[in-house]
Amino acid sequence: MPKVSEDHLAARRSQILDGARRCFAEYGYEGATVRLLEETTGLSRGAIFHHFRDKDALFLALAHEDAGRMAEVAANQGLVQVMRDMLARPEEFDWLGTRLEIARRLRTDPEFRDGWEQRSEELTAATLARLERRKAEGRLRDDVPTDVLLGYLDLVLDGLIARIASGHASDNLSGVLDLVEESVRRK
Amino acid sequence: MPKVSEDHLAARRSQILDGARRCFAEYGYEGATVRLLEETTGLSRGAIFHHFRDKDALFLALAHEDAGRMAEVAANQGLVQVMRDMLARPEEFDWLGTRLEIARRLRTDPEFRDGWEQRSEELTAATLARLERRKAEGRLRDDVPTDVLLGYLDLVLDGLIARIASGHASDNLSGVLDLVEESVRRK
Repeated sequence: MPKVSEDHLAARRSQILDGARRCFAEYGYEGATVRLLEETTGLSRGAIFHHFRDKDALFLALAHEDAGRMAEVAANQGLVQVMRDMLARPEEFDWLGTRLEIARRLRTDPEFRDGWEQRSEELTAATLARLERRKAEGRLRDDVPTDVLLGYLDLVLDGLIARIASGHASDNLSGVLDLVEESVRRK
Repeated sequence: MPKVSEDHLAARRSQILDGARRCFAEYGYEGATVRLLEETTGLSRGAIFHHFRDKDALFLALAHEDAGRMAEVAANQGLVQVMRDMLARPEEFDWLGTRLEIARRLRTDPEFRDGWEQRSEELTAATLARLERRKAEGRLRDDVPTDVLLGYLDLVLDGLIARIASGHASDNLSGVLDLVEESVRRK
């Protein structure tokens, strides 16, 4: 395939993802109709679904994109830094509110759940690798199993996503994240 | 009003709330249609909406009922115990998944948000009172402001609700809650 065409495809794909992200953030998962997706991407349904099989595929592609970005930060600076970034720019993470809408489907639709879990594995792996490294450096507390520390950070992340989604990301959350960071550190 | 009639009203009200709780847990907030509410409560729409103005009012009444029960546990045993109870009997808290569905409305509908916040104030007040008491007894850490500790516990609670709603309340969460409890305690 000639290079110009590959570039074109990548640009189109990214145009669709950007539009879909805004669309999900504004209207929610259920509310993001094909018509609204056409409006926010500026493309026809034919073009959109040429690149992505269906709305689920679009959604999982966005989740994958986010997980990749978050994993990069988590690998270098830790999951708490991922959370600080979310707190600093909640508007970029608005679309994550749709994660909450899909909670029911995660519980009841095994195929969808598998797709979702594959996408979040990257972030889990990056966080775990960093925790292991910090532990080896003697900077992580060693009186609690690493998987519990991971589960703890993950639970706080879920709480933060819920908070941002409901527009309740209040002032003292920065202090809360200091406390979270300190409580996994070696005393 | 004669006593028998008051008893009857209270019983009817509680029958409606129990049915509505099951209905929300099973079908979600949007999915809980009037027809389904009739089925799960075993009452006509006329009877249901004689007691509760609309679906929002039903929802907020359930939230109020839960907040009251949780506040009682929080006042005596703390918010972490509330979370341990949720973890031990996740099926009773399934309906809380609807809290996630309504996140968008909390963000965009001020009247609904006010109603919701009034209902959760009781739990916040009970948790705060216990934290202050523990602090006075010297059992709470005093190097972090109490409102940050409260915000921290609240954030973990939000995470736990999200986790239960998506059916991902995994084994190591009990260890995670030990860590949470320890991190607010005086060393």
